[in-house]
Amino acid sequence: MNSGVPGYDDVDAAARRIEGHAHRTPVLTSRTIDERTGAQLFFKCENFQRMGAFKFRGGYNALARFTPEQKKRGVLAFSSGNHAQAIALSAKLQGIPAAIIMPSDAPAAKLAATRGYGAEVVEYDRFTQDREALSRELAEQRGMTLIPPFDHADVIAGQGTSAKELFDEVGELDALYVCLGGGGLTAGCALAAEALSPNCKVYGVEPEAGNDVQMSLRQGERVKIEVPRTIADGAQTQQVGVLTFDIIRRRVADVLTASDAELVECMKFYAGRMKMVVEPTGALSLAGALKQDLKGQRVGILVSGGNVDMRRFAELLAKH
Amino acid sequence: MNSGVPGYDDVDAAARRIEGHAHRTPVLTSRTIDERTGAQLFFKCENFQRMGAFKFRGGYNALARFTPEQKKRGVLAFSSGNHAQAIALSAKLQGIPAAIIMPSDAPAAKLAATRGYGAEVVEYDRFTQDREALSRELAEQRGMTLIPPFDHADVIAGQGTSAKELFDEVGELDALYVCLGGGGLTAGCALAAEALSPNCKVYGVEPEAGNDVQMSLRQGERVKIEVPRTIADGAQTQQVGVLTFDIIRRRVADVLTASDAELVECMKFYAGRMKMVVEPTGALSLAGALKQDLKGQRVGILVSGGNVDMRRFAELLAKH
Repeated sequence: MNSGVPGYDDVDAAARRIEGHAHRTPVLTSRTIDERTGAQLFFKCENFQRMGAFKFRGGYNALARFTPEQKKRGVLAFSSGNHAQAIALSAKLQGIPAAIIMPSDAPAAKLAATRGYGAEVVEYDRFTQDREALSRELAEQRGMTLIPPFDHADVIAGQGTSAKELFDEVGELDALYVCLGGGGLTAGCALAAEALSPNCKVYGVEPEAGNDVQMSLRQGERVKIEVPRTIADGAQTQQVGVLTFDIIRRRVADVLTASDAELVECMKFYAGRMKMVVEPTGALSLAGALKQDLKGQRVGILVSGGNVDMRRFAELLAKH
Repeated sequence: MNSGVPGYDDVDAAARRIEGHAHRTPVLTSRTIDERTGAQLFFKCENFQRMGAFKFRGGYNALARFTPEQKKRGVLAFSSGNHAQAIALSAKLQGIPAAIIMPSDAPAAKLAATRGYGAEVVEYDRFTQDREALSRELAEQRGMTLIPPFDHADVIAGQGTSAKELFDEVGELDALYVCLGGGGLTAGCALAAEALSPNCKVYGVEPEAGNDVQMSLRQGERVKIEVPRTIADGAQTQQVGVLTFDIIRRRVADVLTASDAELVECMKFYAGRMKMVVEPTGALSLAGALKQDLKGQRVGILVSGGNVDMRRFAELLAKH
């Protein structure tokens, strides 16, 4: 298994591995936004990916790289979000046992969905138990392989296939905006851009309330923050990964931020004009792009996912 | 201009005319619905079409067939919905003057949107003025050509390009379900199916509260009904067209109906699982399909549009 920093070759290999398993998601355009910005925007819609988010790419790729022995012993992950389901579904498709460590007070729907993919859910008490210790223990006891949500070469390479597909479909771009949490998607996309569109500036966009990667870039080292208060629940990471930061600092033009109000505006635009459901985290890329002068450029917008509770979605749409 | 009943050749010609102007909309799939139905469903997503609905296809095609003289004198349409905007936008793109007759109490947003496309909006009083007389008068005075919303060969042929694209992309199908109002889309799709997938059964699906086409089929003649009370505002037609009925009675397997509650369920499915915004009328096709046994079949679902007010959409999503 690849444990060093991945390169474009790994993205390319991942693309072949996930072919026929992950959706090749559509690229949509909007004349409305093109007119407003004076640019040409291409939206890579990972909200239409299996399980509703790009995470399936990295999860599937990581498991496809397991040795036969690893496959037999199984995979372990901790997450209450999209990563849990990406691993659970990928494991099911590849006949690999999976255990997902989730807080016992996670939404019942999420516990059920993860079990629905055939994974064993190991519940823990967020207030009294240490998740990382628990997962190390389980990994040792059962010989399972832990797949972290972003700081892993095969996960990063898998996520990069989304940008590879985008470049393959629309050609080179001047700029690419990517939703940024732990950095897996941003790093993977930066690898793809470097090889397929070398003059493309890649920007990561994170929540204003949790701009740890922006601070890390400025300070030249990984800054750790408190869990940020933001509606972008997929980007509430406290610290960027070691591998992802290594790639981001060298290959990303800059890291921008967006406020919750800007995310809601973008979600409304997506629903009202582009007719698609985008989760708050998935709106980061457009929100960041709209803060810059895009005139005359060909711009990629990586829409990371669409997993938002419908009641919550309805509430946000109704906001002024 | 073609005024008789159109055939597949007209659909084929329309496809070449709209190429590069209309979006070639994506075809999406959902493993969730495939597992639930035991079938393979292909969703042709006209909610991602320009202006959010298939109507742009027919409008653009009809105007592209104008003679130079007709282009100079302009186009006239009456509609408060998607057809108005389809004609306004198509006219703008082709440099043709357009007048759209709309009720003076139409939503301000719709009046503004139509004006935004550069069309002249001619307001009339729904309670004291006869829309049809007004439009005849205008057409005569100015020499403008009236393009009706569905009962017109070039409009029907244009709408059929959506099904043509679907068959071109996924191959032959066992069944195709189409949202049915005045019958333009259903008739056009039936023409495409006959040529490209001769064994495909085409079904129109209309609102339960306004099943005039179903009744017309049963009785062998065009039945006229009161304006039906349904959330499917794009299918509140009182009577199927002459041309569309001619095609439907000969080429459509059957006409099914769906209740408002079933439409809301489908809208929730689309938003929650497929991450897309579908207007009530656009949910008809899936709602109809789900009432039949689809097991083992390859099934097309024509999603007609996504133009629903965001506040209204949020309300419907929040329903139980």
